[in-house]
Amino acid sequence: MSVRTDILVIGAGIMGMASACHLKKNNPEKKVLVIDRYGAPGQGNTGRSNSMFRNTFSSRDNQVLSNSSIDFYLHLQDELKIDIGMQKIGYLWLMDEGQLSASEPHLRLMERNGIEITRYSRKELKRLLPGMVADFGSSEEAKLIELPTVDGGVFGPKCGRLDPDKLVRFYAREFVSSGGELAFNTEAESLLVGPSKRLGIDGEPFVWQESLVERVATNTGTIEAEVVVLAGGAWENELLEPIGLESHAKAKKRQLFSIRAKGEKLEALLRCKGFNALDLLPLVILPKSGVHFKPVSEEGDFWVACEDQVNRPFIDLPEHDLEKYQAEREYYEKSVYPILTSYFPDFVGSKVRAMWAGLYSYNTIDSTPFAFRHKNLIVVGGDSGSGIMKGDALGRIVDALYREEGEANLYGDVPYATTKIGFDKRDVEKEEWVI
Amino acid sequence: MSVRTDILVIGAGIMGMASACHLKKNNPEKKVLVIDRYGAPGQGNTGRSNSMFRNTFSSRDNQVLSNSSIDFYLHLQDELKIDIGMQKIGYLWLMDEGQLSASEPHLRLMERNGIEITRYSRKELKRLLPGMVADFGSSEEAKLIELPTVDGGVFGPKCGRLDPDKLVRFYAREFVSSGGELAFNTEAESLLVGPSKRLGIDGEPFVWQESLVERVATNTGTIEAEVVVLAGGAWENELLEPIGLESHAKAKKRQLFSIRAKGEKLEALLRCKGFNALDLLPLVILPKSGVHFKPVSEEGDFWVACEDQVNRPFIDLPEHDLEKYQAEREYYEKSVYPILTSYFPDFVGSKVRAMWAGLYSYNTIDSTPFAFRHKNLIVVGGDSGSGIMKGDALGRIVDALYREEGEANLYGDVPYATTKIGFDKRDVEKEEWVI
Repeated sequence: MSVRTDILVIGAGIMGMASACHLKKNNPEKKVLVIDRYGAPGQGNTGRSNSMFRNTFSSRDNQVLSNSSIDFYLHLQDELKIDIGMQKIGYLWLMDEGQLSASEPHLRLMERNGIEITRYSRKELKRLLPGMVADFGSSEEAKLIELPTVDGGVFGPKCGRLDPDKLVRFYAREFVSSGGELAFNTEAESLLVGPSKRLGIDGEPFVWQESLVERVATNTGTIEAEVVVLAGGAWENELLEPIGLESHAKAKKRQLFSIRAKGEKLEALLRCKGFNALDLLPLVILPKSGVHFKPVSEEGDFWVACEDQVNRPFIDLPEHDLEKYQAEREYYEKSVYPILTSYFPDFVGSKVRAMWAGLYSYNTIDSTPFAFRHKNLIVVGGDSGSGIMKGDALGRIVDALYREEGEANLYGDVPYATTKIGFDKRDVEKEEWVI
Repeated sequence: MSVRTDILVIGAGIMGMASACHLKKNNPEKKVLVIDRYGAPGQGNTGRSNSMFRNTFSSRDNQVLSNSSIDFYLHLQDELKIDIGMQKIGYLWLMDEGQLSASEPHLRLMERNGIEITRYSRKELKRLLPGMVADFGSSEEAKLIELPTVDGGVFGPKCGRLDPDKLVRFYAREFVSSGGELAFNTEAESLLVGPSKRLGIDGEPFVWQESLVERVATNTGTIEAEVVVLAGGAWENELLEPIGLESHAKAKKRQLFSIRAKGEKLEALLRCKGFNALDLLPLVILPKSGVHFKPVSEEGDFWVACEDQVNRPFIDLPEHDLEKYQAEREYYEKSVYPILTSYFPDFVGSKVRAMWAGLYSYNTIDSTPFAFRHKNLIVVGGDSGSGIMKGDALGRIVDALYREEGEANLYGDVPYATTKIGFDKRDVEKEEWVI
């Protein structure tokens, strides 16, 4: 196969599909082709994600990117009646006093920027979550684990769940219906660099020539493109490093463990009232090691996860075998379970029903996504585990970069300067409000 | 072998040896051990470098780090009469008008900060360098290569060469004579993480435990250390990634080509007068692709190099075989030679006498070094090709990080806040004055 296209998008995850959709819509005369190594959109790390959304970030950039994307998704679901599985269950952070006071400056900034926040006292939390342990007295295990007490909580109401598969398929449908093309089972193997003006001398491009990404080698042949959009998530550096570019993103494994809400107490916890209009538990973030869990009401399950910050390796990705990065039952049993059951003893004895892992494209500089253009190559990624909730905004930014516009127009007529999210003139705040 | 030490320094290049020397001097009661995979100090990329020094940087941080290190090196050579092969030949940047005016803000900042700079007009340059071509008229080749004209020059007098081998051996001698220990042919294979409080449960450390680098596995056994200093240059990420840390440095190959100063014209160029007290050519940087060359007077050679910014891969380092990263004769012939001979036709017909390559530890964020402490691990590096000229300052910063002091005292009583050169609160300017 040897194909020519105006715009080639590598990756049919949330970033690639949102980008492709906005690109095709705003440049209808251009031939836009999306390739992906899997057989359908969203089958990489998008489909393996916890697929939550929140607008509660400390960095103004993350606030804007997520808030405008969430508004677009709410518009899809509520106004256009396109089911993308959105449930505004909210996020509930449980904290001890030290964490609460350290959070206060971030919370005030969020409120100043119009991000809704509710503060809960310990007393209110105990009423809403009667099964929760807020204080461990002289428990030996709590001392061992050094568990913070629960002295209060922070709740984000414009936060919740969505279905990543449905969202990506929405973008794919829109893209195809506006004339875009999708090629699955097509894996980008390398970016082929050539001189902007070919002289016909063996060994081009030399260092004194301007060089561009001319073509992309895939398992099914070479694709020539005027502009290449790389939306490869955790795999991006594999394509960038060989041409001397750097995305500042590293792959990090994240695991999800599914626990059946068996028994009266866990069922009651799942369907607890008082937090949201759905009468469901919010995503609950415990005060230790980023352990968190959410209700998956349609399946009667909780999904439990843990955002460890250290200790665990970045993953080198010499092969594309996702199976290599499997979830580890022992991680749940020894690292997550002791924390979970200390705060919520109703989980004692619970067993992992299913588990899986995905890869974060972890921006090691500021935990904030990037999108930049280097000549005819546009790179988007580094979403650090919050890509789905910012995907629509980033797709619009990619389109603005393509059209070489200094400002993207995000959903809800929100302007966003495209240079600030690149690296040459990066001007984003480091995200401090991580789980 | 199973060894215990207070401080273990990994790497006996310039960063490791300068750090070890200052650490031992300021903490004489501590056992300090330096290990290196090679059989002598400075045998990795320190010994393979172009080993130049300059204080002419745009970033205030690089100015301070280099200037205080150069002052220390001058003190060694001129006052203590320790030969480290310093030659203040100066750096000469040749530029066209666009480059000159783009440089002006940087130059003014340097001058404001007391960095000496001389500006040369085209006419002065033509007088000093009669063999130089400043304008290419309608030459076909110049048009093809898109060669900028030489409209002026910028000269840094407090810049020049030094001998990296002699410098590193000075530090090694000082270190050993104050009681430090060196173990060569000892290669760090991995950092072994353990819990700060061991509970004796299989699988420690869990995510709810604080974890530290407990030991370092090497080819000759395990070394236990209270504090580990990682000064591994281009190889650092190999040790950091498996424990989930990131240095933001990537390995990039740089090549040096040695050309004999044969014939009257090249000899005259090598020993040209008017730039420095040594009556030698300065390091000359051409206006295109960072091609530069310097005189190696004691051998009657020029060393030619090229600082290409794009096109060339970052190098993945699965093995430690430096031979893998050899210089390429074709790179000289096709990429460097056409530029060199266009500006200095006296090089026409010159042949590569010797060539070699080394690896930059390239800080992809801001081309400025880093030093940070994560619990009991201190990491220094990312010097991006200007590590030797900043080595002494970084060694002193590592020592301040070890003693948990907020400020390092650089040579000449220059204070430097240690947090600003880390990543958590990084506060350095991106370097714009790169070759």
